[in-house]
Amino acid sequence: MHTPMETPETDPLAVFARALAESATPMALSYFRTPLDIEKKEDLSPVTKADRSIESAMRAQIIDRFPGHGIYGEEHGSSKLDSPNIWVLDPIDGTKSFITGMPAFGTLVAHLEHGKPTIGVISIPPTGEIWVGQTGAATQFCGQGCRTSGCTRLADARLYTTSPDSFDAEGLAIFDRISARAAMRRFGGDCYTYGLLASGHVDAVVEMDLQPYDYLALVPVIEGAGGVITDWNGAPLGLDSSGRVVAAATPELHAEILSMTRG
Amino acid sequence: MHTPMETPETDPLAVFARALAESATPMALSYFRTPLDIEKKEDLSPVTKADRSIESAMRAQIIDRFPGHGIYGEEHGSSKLDSPNIWVLDPIDGTKSFITGMPAFGTLVAHLEHGKPTIGVISIPPTGEIWVGQTGAATQFCGQGCRTSGCTRLADARLYTTSPDSFDAEGLAIFDRISARAAMRRFGGDCYTYGLLASGHVDAVVEMDLQPYDYLALVPVIEGAGGVITDWNGAPLGLDSSGRVVAAATPELHAEILSMTRG
Repeated sequence: MHTPMETPETDPLAVFARALAESATPMALSYFRTPLDIEKKEDLSPVTKADRSIESAMRAQIIDRFPGHGIYGEEHGSSKLDSPNIWVLDPIDGTKSFITGMPAFGTLVAHLEHGKPTIGVISIPPTGEIWVGQTGAATQFCGQGCRTSGCTRLADARLYTTSPDSFDAEGLAIFDRISARAAMRRFGGDCYTYGLLASGHVDAVVEMDLQPYDYLALVPVIEGAGGVITDWNGAPLGLDSSGRVVAAATPELHAEILSMTRG
Repeated sequence: MHTPMETPETDPLAVFARALAESATPMALSYFRTPLDIEKKEDLSPVTKADRSIESAMRAQIIDRFPGHGIYGEEHGSSKLDSPNIWVLDPIDGTKSFITGMPAFGTLVAHLEHGKPTIGVISIPPTGEIWVGQTGAATQFCGQGCRTSGCTRLADARLYTTSPDSFDAEGLAIFDRISARAAMRRFGGDCYTYGLLASGHVDAVVEMDLQPYDYLALVPVIEGAGGVITDWNGAPLGLDSSGRVVAAATPELHAEILSMTRG
């Protein structure tokens, strides 16, 4: 992997991505823990006014700065996906956390070049924590380099998934088999768990039914911290992936989990 | 319910309880997100050095100020339980959160008079949030009065439990039936979810297999905010309870859930 001249702290595109994610913070906090009209989308996940207004503001910044770039957002659909440069946005990842006052939700920004995620940002508005990853560079946590834990064996691993409710029956059986061999498992956290993985506090995350705006920002963050993140068959994650994700602190741990998830 | 002359902000015992919980914060944060030796207790829950050193420091403060009072702690056992005044301590509630860097763990302090919890404190070290409850007074969140949501129907309720792994098969079936009727369910959070319930962001929590140091501090916090908290049969919580807990924003919601948990 080449080392770019720029780091995520100085590369103009990464600096823009970080600023874009951070621009969501005051908006998200202005809605957080206030009464909300909770609407229902077709998939029954809760959507808030906050989600929609934040994404609109983020899209306006992208169109102003990079009018030729494509945008793929959770709330307002996609535009110019034939562009070699695409921004993927999730204004509030962890909507259930958000609407229950739990400070574990995040704002996700990914930048794709020719379909490959090259920049990713995980921002946690209530705590001010932010992870910025860029292909070929060390992931930055609040401006400091961070590393995964180095855990190489499932038997030693702290394993997360957001909810058992996100799995179908077959997927849940697979997750149960994996977690039975792990040192511990815990539920809850959405994107936050991947940041904690990049910083060495969590060793693995296994999920299914994620959307591109849920997982694409995670890829540069995890990879730049020394971890591995793919779909359940070991394929790189892109816009057309299955939404089944395995992230692990090391290639060895990733391989051990993949031996149980491969279809 | 009588209204005491003192509020939790001025009552000497409540002020001491709050200070006792807050004294754990710098200690907890000094261990948080640092490498830990994770030991295993007989029940296999992870225990950290942090847990033990914090409880020792808290016990020393109680012995210094109230040498005749009893103490019931998670880590170092019980003393003088024949005293009419007993302090119940959980230095780090949410150990799995703690050891995975998730800022949703808490410090719990309860004071019992003749077996009844009359003061409760939920402190969240990473965020600085603190709930203080006292029998007959309005629960204080960071020095401001707080109230439960007023949700009266399970169909409208945001429901939490910490983990499906805490239930036995029968208990999980009951939780599944309850949550199937709720507006949403989410996992994770330990004591934090009860604080969020007191502040109106969560509507109900249903758990089993809790210990007295897990639930006794919650009682004055929930009751002083307008909520109801009992065991699964509607009995008040004390040192000898079953560890099965239902907490709800209103008596109506509590009664609806209890109709499904009663043995």
